[in-house]
Amino acid sequence: MLEIKHPYLLFLGDAVDQLAAKTADGVARWRPEWCLGQLRLPGCAADVGLPDMSVQEAQERGARTLVIGVANRGGIISDVWMETLLSALDAGFDIASGLHNRLGLLPALADRAQRLGRELVDVRYPELELRVAHGEARSGRRLLTVGTDCSCGKMFTALAVERELRARSRKATFRATGQTGILIAGTGVSVDAVVADFISGATEQLAPANDEDHWDLIEGQGSLFHASYAGVSLGLLHGAQANALIMCHEPTRTHMRGLPQQALPSLQECIDLNQRCGQLTNPGCRVVGISLNTSQLADADVEQTCLAIEKETGLPTVDAYRHGAGRLVDALPA
Amino acid sequence: MLEIKHPYLLFLGDAVDQLAAKTADGVARWRPEWCLGQLRLPGCAADVGLPDMSVQEAQERGARTLVIGVANRGGIISDVWMETLLSALDAGFDIASGLHNRLGLLPALADRAQRLGRELVDVRYPELELRVAHGEARSGRRLLTVGTDCSCGKMFTALAVERELRARSRKATFRATGQTGILIAGTGVSVDAVVADFISGATEQLAPANDEDHWDLIEGQGSLFHASYAGVSLGLLHGAQANALIMCHEPTRTHMRGLPQQALPSLQECIDLNQRCGQLTNPGCRVVGISLNTSQLADADVEQTCLAIEKETGLPTVDAYRHGAGRLVDALPA
Repeated sequence: MLEIKHPYLLFLGDAVDQLAAKTADGVARWRPEWCLGQLRLPGCAADVGLPDMSVQEAQERGARTLVIGVANRGGIISDVWMETLLSALDAGFDIASGLHNRLGLLPALADRAQRLGRELVDVRYPELELRVAHGEARSGRRLLTVGTDCSCGKMFTALAVERELRARSRKATFRATGQTGILIAGTGVSVDAVVADFISGATEQLAPANDEDHWDLIEGQGSLFHASYAGVSLGLLHGAQANALIMCHEPTRTHMRGLPQQALPSLQECIDLNQRCGQLTNPGCRVVGISLNTSQLADADVEQTCLAIEKETGLPTVDAYRHGAGRLVDALPA
Repeated sequence: MLEIKHPYLLFLGDAVDQLAAKTADGVARWRPEWCLGQLRLPGCAADVGLPDMSVQEAQERGARTLVIGVANRGGIISDVWMETLLSALDAGFDIASGLHNRLGLLPALADRAQRLGRELVDVRYPELELRVAHGEARSGRRLLTVGTDCSCGKMFTALAVERELRARSRKATFRATGQTGILIAGTGVSVDAVVADFISGATEQLAPANDEDHWDLIEGQGSLFHASYAGVSLGLLHGAQANALIMCHEPTRTHMRGLPQQALPSLQECIDLNQRCGQLTNPGCRVVGISLNTSQLADADVEQTCLAIEKETGLPTVDAYRHGAGRLVDALPA
């Protein structure tokens, strides 16, 4: 499985707004200890709160990888970035990217990297040798974040649970399944990019047998109710063999992301189907809590919304990002 | 989408037994009108009931494609076959294969094919430009065969329904999702080999909008209850947007194929979950009948087994291969 060396220099390029640097923001937020600084080109409209730093300064401080933390339209590698990327290779760094088009397919980068012995890490493209899932019970505890929809807080929630468990001195590892998650974890598998037959098998490899008191916090993808991506979600659910699920939900959403004709499922439907399917590979699998993404709510409405959903479902309900994951961790099975 | 030209010459090679020529057997059984003959090498222990024919004889009768209808251990292309394959290219044929290793990666074949302008069709590797599923309602009728497990008759059942509909002069097209199915249909998509994000989208492309009175008979794969492959099955179910499902089942199986620790689901569980998930993209989706693979039963037990399951489920239950699909077609929604 791929390994990205840290510390990182986060490359924000010429990001057109803060959202374009969402990846850098995630890495800076969840792995501040790995991030030496941010590199911004003229015109960059994003800031992830790290010291501005040139390639040379980062080199002096021991950076190992330049992480491309910016996306432009189309997910391509901009010509404007090229001089910086080449100088990063010259300075001894690897480069890691979650963009669609591969670093290794750009001849200028590929040639320079090969000549200097640097790694170009395209986290979107799984490099592990894929295996079909075996479905056999394995040791250790696993939590999977699932959702009513795509993009509703599954990565943040898994990371918040990892942070809380570690704060309680418990063994915990975030397991990344998407591009930003992999840059945050320094490793992982982009499960939506593996060949369909191997979704569950890749998840088994990502979260293997472990100590009985160790928790893997597996980043979920999509939703069993998303007509485009549910196959990925089900493969992940079976491969995760999860002891616990946390249901992630964005309470203001009126339809499934990207599918204007499709309504969101009810929380209870979504809880039921995830438990039912999860129990195929772990009969004890159950939803232990709800994590709301309340970023679209007025501050004054957050507590009331959490309380209402807690009453409706009977499950502890928090915004794991806003409130921390303490109540979710309290709800984990012993 | 790929297109395999017919008529075919079926290549049985040095098949070690009848089962090794299962692919040729399927093609000969379901597309006899496309099959001119079988080509067997010395030592071949299989026979699919077609006239034995050399490359030259097949050429004289107008064959367009040599179909590799045999599998050996490992799914590789045997050296022993090479002389025949090259002579088929020389005779003007394309070659089609569902094996793991690609025809196009063997330099001797690739060079000869390119020089002569022949196609090497590796049906296992989808060539279509993949799109994410849109999930929008589309015209036409679609039936998907689903199953309690892998390898329990989903392809045969879809083909039997196609045959019965055509016998009744109704518009019907078998839609292939696996290697043998694609060789039988002459086109299709190997859905388990597409990148996970595109399972449903590939199925939408495979069975597009059509006349309102046209039925697509889509070959299912795997099972929602198979811990290795359920993601493929769910993506297919959502992409199929099926009006009708037929549940396929092998009544003597004691555990899921390849997973000795995992019991089969009950038929009713399997019916419920498939309907529930299928209704996401087609609210009218329901299981209309059961197709048993009774090949492992004694003849004397077949009728009794069908009757018992028909009583248990309240659904017409046949072995579509043994009995034909008449009762299943009668159960289709108008």
